[in-house]
Amino acid sequence: MRIVVLAGGIGGARFLRGLKRAAPDADITVIGNTGDDIHLFGLKVCPDLDTVMYTLGGGIDEERGWGRADETFHVKGELAAYGVGPEWFGLGDRDFATHIVRTQMLGAGYPLSAVTEALCARWKPGVRLLPMSDDRVETHVAIELDGERRAVHFQEYWVKLRASVDAQAVVPVGAERAAPAPGVLEAIGEADVVLFPPSNPVVSIGTILAVPGIREAIADAGVPVVGLSPIVGNAPVRGMADKVLAAVGVESTASAVARHYGSGLLDGWLVDTTDADTVGEVETAGIRCRAVPLMMTDVEAAAAMAREALALAEEVRA
Amino acid sequence: MRIVVLAGGIGGARFLRGLKRAAPDADITVIGNTGDDIHLFGLKVCPDLDTVMYTLGGGIDEERGWGRADETFHVKGELAAYGVGPEWFGLGDRDFATHIVRTQMLGAGYPLSAVTEALCARWKPGVRLLPMSDDRVETHVAIELDGERRAVHFQEYWVKLRASVDAQAVVPVGAERAAPAPGVLEAIGEADVVLFPPSNPVVSIGTILAVPGIREAIADAGVPVVGLSPIVGNAPVRGMADKVLAAVGVESTASAVARHYGSGLLDGWLVDTTDADTVGEVETAGIRCRAVPLMMTDVEAAAAMAREALALAEEVRA
Repeated sequence: MRIVVLAGGIGGARFLRGLKRAAPDADITVIGNTGDDIHLFGLKVCPDLDTVMYTLGGGIDEERGWGRADETFHVKGELAAYGVGPEWFGLGDRDFATHIVRTQMLGAGYPLSAVTEALCARWKPGVRLLPMSDDRVETHVAIELDGERRAVHFQEYWVKLRASVDAQAVVPVGAERAAPAPGVLEAIGEADVVLFPPSNPVVSIGTILAVPGIREAIADAGVPVVGLSPIVGNAPVRGMADKVLAAVGVESTASAVARHYGSGLLDGWLVDTTDADTVGEVETAGIRCRAVPLMMTDVEAAAAMAREALALAEEVRA
Repeated sequence: MRIVVLAGGIGGARFLRGLKRAAPDADITVIGNTGDDIHLFGLKVCPDLDTVMYTLGGGIDEERGWGRADETFHVKGELAAYGVGPEWFGLGDRDFATHIVRTQMLGAGYPLSAVTEALCARWKPGVRLLPMSDDRVETHVAIELDGERRAVHFQEYWVKLRASVDAQAVVPVGAERAAPAPGVLEAIGEADVVLFPPSNPVVSIGTILAVPGIREAIADAGVPVVGLSPIVGNAPVRGMADKVLAAVGVESTASAVARHYGSGLLDGWLVDTTDADTVGEVETAGIRCRAVPLMMTDVEAAAAMAREALALAEEVRA
C-alpha cells in the first residue's frame, strides 16, 4: 500500500511513528511543511522536516518533542555572548550540525529535496521524506504589537511571542510562486490513500496545500483522503492552533476544521471520542466521520489512530 | 610606546601575553597571519587570529594552546555521523560559534578586518588585532604523496599529515594580489618598534611579509625591528617549522632564520642561551644579537622575553 502523508512538526511526526507501526509494509511518502523554515545565524533551519526526521530516525528529544536527545547548547550560549541572536530559538549543538550540513549543501547548489534525502541517508526514517517545495516559502503572521501593525515570521509569532497576541492574517509568502518538489505530485498520483495527521490545519497542512498543484493533485487523485482532528474538546491538543484558525475565520472545533478542509478535498475525518457529538455535523458536510481516541500518549496510541484512519479510508473506498 | 607585532598562532599569542605584561601601557597592534585560514563546513575559520584573540581574551584552552577552554565536540561528532569531514580538524562547539558569527558577517558584506574587530569587542584582547589582509590568501604546500606530486592546503599538511612528508614548496596563494588590511600600513608607519615573535618564519611571519607593501613598510619605517628565534638548539620549540624552512632552503638554526629575514629587514635578534655560540654569526650578518632564555614556560617567562626584545630595540635605536 502506498500512503502519502502531509506533515507539520511534532503532531505529524508522532502520528507517522504510529503509522509505521500500524502499516509496517506500507510505502510511505511524507510531504513536509517548509513554511516555518527560517534562516538563523546564516544557516537554513527546517524545523518540521527535522522533527519528522529525528522522530522517525530515533534522534528526537522525547520530552520536548523537537531537537536532539542528549543535547547541549554551547554554540547558542557563545553566540549570545557575541551579542548575536535570536536567543528565543533553541538550537542545540547536535542540531546545529544538521543545519551546517544543509546550508553547505544548499550553498553548493543542491536543492532542498536532495539535501533532505542526504540527511535522511543517516537517519533512515523508514519513510520517503520530501519537502513540499524546493522553493523558499515563509509563513508570515500579521499582528498588532504595541499599537503597530507588523508582519512577523511564523517562528517569531509562535516561539518568541508564543501566539500571545491575535493573528490577524497568516500568509505563506512565496507559496504562490513555489513549485512542488520533485516527486511530490508523482507520489500523490500513485497513492492508495492520503492522510492528514493531527497537524496544524493552517500553518502546517494549510501551507503545504497552498503550493500550487498540491491541493488539486490530492483532490483529483481519486483515492481516499482521511484526516485526524488536531482539535479535541474545542482546544488544540498541542500548541496554539486556535490562534491561527481564528485568523482564517475558522472556529477551534473538530467539526469546523473538517469543514474548512471541505468535502472537495477530504473524504473521511476522525474526531476524538470527546467530540462524538460533532460526527453528525461533519457527515452533513459530506465527510465520513468517526469518533475514536485521538490522544497520542505513546506510540501504540498513535498506531491505533493510524489503524482507525486506514480503516476509515477503506470504508470510503468501498 | 607604539608596538607592532607580526603574529602567527600559539607562539605569537603567548609572546603577546608576555608583551602585555612587560609593557602594560604600550599601544600594541597585532598584524595576524591569515594564510592558514580555511573554509570548513561552509564556515570561514581563521586559526591564527582566533588563537591570538582567545589567548589574550582569556578564552583559550591552555593545555592545547588552540581552541576554547571547557570545550565540547558535539557538532563535530554529528558532522562525522553525516559523513561530512574533515575529521582531522578539531573544531569545538564553542569555537564553532565564532566561525558562525564570522561567516554570517562576511556573508553580509563586512570585510574580515571589521569582523575581527566585532569579535574582539567581546574578547577585549587588549591589543588592536588586524588581519594582514582582507583578501583571501591561502598557504599551499607542495608535497609528494604516494608517488604523486600534489599541493595541499597548509592545514592539511600541518594538521592532517603532521608534516610527515617533506614540503617541496610553500606558496601563499593569492598573496601577490592581496592588499594590506586597513590600518596595517598606518600602524607600521606610526610604530616605535616592530617585533617578530617566535612564530613560524615561513608560514606565519613569512606569509604576512608576502603581502605586497608590508615588508617594504617595515623596512622603511626607520624604527628598530627585533625578532625572537623560534628555533632553539637546532629544532623548533613547537611544531614542525624545520619542514617548511627546508622547503625554502633555510637550515633549522637560530642563525639561519635571522639571516633568512636579513639585515635589510631585521635590526635585532634574540637567540636562546643554548645557541649563544651563534651570536657572532648573526652579528656578522649585520644583525645585533643577544642570547637570552627563550622558552615560554609561563606568562612571566614570555614577559621576560618581551623585556629583552624591547631592551634590544632600545639598544638598536641608540
